[in-house]
Amino acid sequence: MAVTAGAVRPAVADQGGVTAPAGFQVGVASADIRGDHAHGPDLALIVSDRPAAAAGVFTSNIVRAAPVVISQLHLKRGLARAVVVNSGNANACTGARGLGDALRMAQATSECVDCAPGEVLVASTGVIGRTLPMERILPAIAAAGSSLARNGHEAAEAIMTTDTMSKQAAEALVLEGVEHHLGGMAKGSGMIHPEMATLLAFVTTDVRIGPGLLSELLRQAVGLSFNRISVDGDTSTNDCCLVMANGAVGGPELRPGSSDTELFAAALNRVLGSLAQQVVADGEGATRTFSVRVTGAVDESQALLAARTVTSSPLVKTAIHGGDPNWGRILAAVGRSGAELALDRCRLSIQGEELFAFGQVVDGAVPRVVPLLSMPQIAIEINLGAGEAEATALGCDLSSDYVRINAAYST
Amino acid sequence: MAVTAGAVRPAVADQGGVTAPAGFQVGVASADIRGDHAHGPDLALIVSDRPAAAAGVFTSNIVRAAPVVISQLHLKRGLARAVVVNSGNANACTGARGLGDALRMAQATSECVDCAPGEVLVASTGVIGRTLPMERILPAIAAAGSSLARNGHEAAEAIMTTDTMSKQAAEALVLEGVEHHLGGMAKGSGMIHPEMATLLAFVTTDVRIGPGLLSELLRQAVGLSFNRISVDGDTSTNDCCLVMANGAVGGPELRPGSSDTELFAAALNRVLGSLAQQVVADGEGATRTFSVRVTGAVDESQALLAARTVTSSPLVKTAIHGGDPNWGRILAAVGRSGAELALDRCRLSIQGEELFAFGQVVDGAVPRVVPLLSMPQIAIEINLGAGEAEATALGCDLSSDYVRINAAYST
Repeated sequence: MAVTAGAVRPAVADQGGVTAPAGFQVGVASADIRGDHAHGPDLALIVSDRPAAAAGVFTSNIVRAAPVVISQLHLKRGLARAVVVNSGNANACTGARGLGDALRMAQATSECVDCAPGEVLVASTGVIGRTLPMERILPAIAAAGSSLARNGHEAAEAIMTTDTMSKQAAEALVLEGVEHHLGGMAKGSGMIHPEMATLLAFVTTDVRIGPGLLSELLRQAVGLSFNRISVDGDTSTNDCCLVMANGAVGGPELRPGSSDTELFAAALNRVLGSLAQQVVADGEGATRTFSVRVTGAVDESQALLAARTVTSSPLVKTAIHGGDPNWGRILAAVGRSGAELALDRCRLSIQGEELFAFGQVVDGAVPRVVPLLSMPQIAIEINLGAGEAEATALGCDLSSDYVRINAAYST
Repeated sequence: MAVTAGAVRPAVADQGGVTAPAGFQVGVASADIRGDHAHGPDLALIVSDRPAAAAGVFTSNIVRAAPVVISQLHLKRGLARAVVVNSGNANACTGARGLGDALRMAQATSECVDCAPGEVLVASTGVIGRTLPMERILPAIAAAGSSLARNGHEAAEAIMTTDTMSKQAAEALVLEGVEHHLGGMAKGSGMIHPEMATLLAFVTTDVRIGPGLLSELLRQAVGLSFNRISVDGDTSTNDCCLVMANGAVGGPELRPGSSDTELFAAALNRVLGSLAQQVVADGEGATRTFSVRVTGAVDESQALLAARTVTSSPLVKTAIHGGDPNWGRILAAVGRSGAELALDRCRLSIQGEELFAFGQVVDGAVPRVVPLLSMPQIAIEINLGAGEAEATALGCDLSSDYVRINAAYST
């Protein structure tokens, strides 16, 4: 059963998000990181009551933020007790000082949960290039550590930046007769065009699994979810998706290739898929989302390339915003994507209505599509006519609000 | 001497644009291609009074418009007498009917100027996916052919779509004691991210030069001008840059490697450079332009990759729009570009003020840059610290008007 929480739902908070699995708690506090006294909690801890297998996928941007560098280092042992996250400041492009600050965040967190600093993972999001206000962050970590509870939704809210809603998902699954849980939360609204990982996403589970297999399943799930969404084509310096598995309900350890592992992998895919959809729906300025399913490609990577090029095209995104069935812009984007295409066998449909086939427009189709474009979710399908492979990507429209938000953000 | 005309300047019209060289005339007419009776002339002919050496560079988009296919075919002989251009309809994704229509446009033009249909090049720009109103286009071609004159600026206006100003440039150069001319015009405002060629651009010259050398010089000039600009990251299906050289002033034929050829190549670079700058300045919704000079790259292609990634980034473009010295977004774009980068040796400046050096922000620099960002042209310089190569790209800001224009355009 998939539990997907959009806005905060206090009544079921314990069932959703990172505290859905046994043995996980969160703590939040305000460090006034933006320095404007205008925001609530902006720092969160996720703590496992015992050492958990841990894995992460990180940004492919070669400008990597300090917390990314530190978390990659700490993950080498495949083990973690806690994650500390802040919003409002990315701690990116901050030099040696930034690395020291990320280490001090890990150190302060380790003191709260009585573990080694190397068992703490660190994540930050917000403005690039500013040093962290450590004089307020360290007391906030202590405060968060002294208020641990099973209120996952509070952590999901604390990590928001330009997000307008918190993003959580959870799954329950029965392995060998025992109920296990998988929960996750994410933040992200702009600078979203993940490559290898994305934005900030945190997943917890009480399943027992080794770090090697966990890392492999995480990579696959990220490839099918976050790496298929785009808000604005910009890949962040801080992207990371972290998972902790603490085995708290005491089931048997998952083995590669077993049917239980398949069940777990499917649940992980659904949790990350739900979080990815929530991120796109909350894209900066977005008023609707659209999926681009590309079929008939030579291979899956070409299908994905074509699909992601369409979801990133400003002209397609503005047409979707205006409710304009401008299939020519979609074909133009596919044509520049680099994917092989047989134009005379190519077919294109929007909301199930075929608009282009056999090299030309389908007579009378455009007026049938126009009224369907006022819906909040738009489905585009393109058959490249070149092979058998397919892939789907998700995007959102480009509105004047995106411009307003990003022309005003930061300084 | 570079003559660059922005808006129409009737008093000097004969000195600028495609009728600056001897032996070239233009004719324009209205075919009401958009079918709304709301526009002026939307069809133009450029005619040489004798056969001219001809060359072209075309879009790399594999969805190629019918006129692109026909012009590439006709250019195989390296010879042309005329170009016929229309705005308002791209004749792209129009199947066999579209190819037939492009051929009929060449045929009708050849009857006006008494040449073979294969000596006519065809270009179209506008909405994708609609068939041309040939019942109005063929009479318009005849009308344009019967009104040929040396009014280059009228052609520059007839080819505009979402452009807000016409774009012309011209150069005079003395070769072997004889004055020659080079003139050009371009249109383009959206779907601008040229690759191998761009938008529509037409260049004429009365220099005597063979088609092989002409083609080589054109390719070089396009690589240094149109292929370094971006409005929105979308590469058009109709991009083309055509040049005709008719030798009308009777000088000696240019030879590869001669000093005269170098003079001509430099003038060609300046004409295309001027047109490219005019296209960016008139980018859809643009309120200012910015140049990105990348130095310290491993090689020129990496420098250009980094520079173009920055000019295409929606987050950089909105920051420029908002007058926000958000250098973190610039570095993030460089980091995802794929270019090699040594972050600890990297330096970044805006309007000559260094903001980032040796891995961190320069103290106190941001407030000094803010007032400089209200200027119409912004200069960004980034040293990657990885090598010796450099390249410069041009872009424009992203405003709410871009969204408004493109959410409303077409249907």
